[in-house]
Amino acid sequence: MRIVVFGGDGFCGWPTSLHLSARGHDVWIVDNLVRRSIDIELEVSSLTPIASISTRLEAWADVSGRAIPHLNIDVAKEFYRVLDVFKEVQPDAVIHFAEQRAAPYSMKSERHKRYTVENNTAATHNLLCAIVESGVDVHIVHLGTMGVYGYGGGATIPEGYLPVEILSADGRRIPREILHPADPGSIYHMTKTLDQLLFYYYNKNDHVRVTDLHQGVVWGTNTEETKRDPRLINRFDYDGDYGTVLNRFLMQAAIGYPLTVHGTGGQTRAFIHIQDTARCIELALLNPPPRNSRVQIFNQMAETHRVRDLAERVATLTGASIEYLPNPRNEAPENDLIVEAKSLVELGLTPTRLERGLLEEVIDVGKRYVDRCDRRRIPCTSTWTVERERILARSS
Amino acid sequence: MRIVVFGGDGFCGWPTSLHLSARGHDVWIVDNLVRRSIDIELEVSSLTPIASISTRLEAWADVSGRAIPHLNIDVAKEFYRVLDVFKEVQPDAVIHFAEQRAAPYSMKSERHKRYTVENNTAATHNLLCAIVESGVDVHIVHLGTMGVYGYGGGATIPEGYLPVEILSADGRRIPREILHPADPGSIYHMTKTLDQLLFYYYNKNDHVRVTDLHQGVVWGTNTEETKRDPRLINRFDYDGDYGTVLNRFLMQAAIGYPLTVHGTGGQTRAFIHIQDTARCIELALLNPPPRNSRVQIFNQMAETHRVRDLAERVATLTGASIEYLPNPRNEAPENDLIVEAKSLVELGLTPTRLERGLLEEVIDVGKRYVDRCDRRRIPCTSTWTVERERILARSS
Repeated sequence: MRIVVFGGDGFCGWPTSLHLSARGHDVWIVDNLVRRSIDIELEVSSLTPIASISTRLEAWADVSGRAIPHLNIDVAKEFYRVLDVFKEVQPDAVIHFAEQRAAPYSMKSERHKRYTVENNTAATHNLLCAIVESGVDVHIVHLGTMGVYGYGGGATIPEGYLPVEILSADGRRIPREILHPADPGSIYHMTKTLDQLLFYYYNKNDHVRVTDLHQGVVWGTNTEETKRDPRLINRFDYDGDYGTVLNRFLMQAAIGYPLTVHGTGGQTRAFIHIQDTARCIELALLNPPPRNSRVQIFNQMAETHRVRDLAERVATLTGASIEYLPNPRNEAPENDLIVEAKSLVELGLTPTRLERGLLEEVIDVGKRYVDRCDRRRIPCTSTWTVERERILARSS
Repeated sequence: MRIVVFGGDGFCGWPTSLHLSARGHDVWIVDNLVRRSIDIELEVSSLTPIASISTRLEAWADVSGRAIPHLNIDVAKEFYRVLDVFKEVQPDAVIHFAEQRAAPYSMKSERHKRYTVENNTAATHNLLCAIVESGVDVHIVHLGTMGVYGYGGGATIPEGYLPVEILSADGRRIPREILHPADPGSIYHMTKTLDQLLFYYYNKNDHVRVTDLHQGVVWGTNTEETKRDPRLINRFDYDGDYGTVLNRFLMQAAIGYPLTVHGTGGQTRAFIHIQDTARCIELALLNPPPRNSRVQIFNQMAETHRVRDLAERVATLTGASIEYLPNPRNEAPENDLIVEAKSLVELGLTPTRLERGLLEEVIDVGKRYVDRCDRRRIPCTSTWTVERERILARSS
């Protein structure tokens, strides 16, 4: 399969690109390296020493004998170059990771809000528009988020579509299956709900074939492929903006920093290991939706956990202490989360469970690169509202 | 009330600005005059001879003694100037017309699709972001469209929120009131569904007070105020991109051109007179949603009609002939449309009915400015899909 990975230099994009190349697919990476620029802005670096994109690709060619061309294109701003990629590569499928992906970063300031909305919306729309304009018959696989559903509710979260009965004003009950109502909890999550409507429309009007993968919180660092050479190592974000909750706990445990739980830690979230991210995406690629069918939506996660339970688990495993801090996010202090996630398992996924790698991460990543950690970057400083900003200021 | 009208030089924005000024409100217009630039791009002019914005505002000062300042700002691109407007004017309310508003224009090409998505999304987001950033307690009134609901369904279309019962995977029925599922029929309509999610999120996270007015197809040209001086005349679009269906029929009847019905004409749409648009917006301004309540959504329309029935009515009234043409739009050939639209009536609206002004429009606008009509601009040439483009090409 000929596959273009938009955003193929990022935390999920890079291991996915190698995973697909290793399995015999022809892979192209399109990435403007903006994630590396944001590190400069935030004055932080990946805990793991990641190589430049060209060094990475040389290393991959060395160990696998396979070339992955890289094109430095801003997907949100350079539409005609994106269009040329479709015309020239004639891909069978494209993967869309080319979005700003951190909720806290999206809330830092008006500038970050606007960047996230404008970048993510234009990137998704440019890809859809280029597919139609190029006339190439391509399957687009998009990384969505469990956060499009919201975490309230009480009902089991289905895979994208919700059966309901509409109570019509004239007293009738009309059965319908609708796109699950959107309930985003940050500007970042909101952009993924906008994406859903872009996909819905282009699928309806132009029959673009789309798979939207609503992913849980990713943990872990490396995959089979990124372990094959030190130059292939994946990024590990530990800072308050880009670090994901479980990876932050593992790193905190490794360096002797208290595990930082916000609010009561009663937030329940879905989790998936980075290795499974790559596997799920290949499963989605191999199982495109039938022609002229609606957008295919899968929930991409292995298990759900309450944040404080995770902290306790890591604390028990490592002896770390736990610190409860005010929550910078505007969210329910406690929530249940019951998620349906059968589709990818039915397609062949055997999810990696937490017990399989927690300690390995602490040792192989956290302890190994402890000297690269800037402890000043650990606290979460981006707040959801002015009120939350005041609460955080008082507590620090 | 201190009111900023974003997009106050356009077809709805201009008469609304005068309507509000005439009723004693202090009005500011922010408009980058892009609608006039699009006339240049499309090589067409308003059938009515509209004056420049400064001439318009001088005329208004002459007849009313009231000043309306105009600021030329691109709302989608000049965030910091928008923010300054909020800080300096300290408005009680703002009205958001600053979006590309023609479905056919939004479908003309990839460039028009991208302009419509990027302009409309950034404009709405910049306004919301500026409200939060400025800290001004302001009510934002937005012009949505009936098109967010789609026209399929069969259920009565409620005012924004739909009561449903969710059929949970564990067998429970959970009653819920949800934002009506979005089903846009063009890129333009899609942007209004994206707006809904932006409003939803900023209302939820930041308690921004929003009224979203889902308006039907507007007809008519002038209002009490725009009739007060020839320099105040409102624009009248008759071309295939910006002309609205009933106004096109009226103009076609006036100049002896067959009334152009696309497809079977079985599309049912909601209609509202331009005078009522202005009235509805004032009613919304005077009745903001309570603090900390959800987005207030009203359906803004007077009556619904099947397009072919309208054509027959105008034909009977004027002796015009009807021509059935292939449909450039990708839509259901026939649809019912039952709409709930009580809220604005309860607030005091007495809707203008079709019988009250059809012939007046034909004579006062159509026949009067017949010499300004470029008949080459009447056909609809923007198509929704490549297939529709081929059908249109074969038929012409």
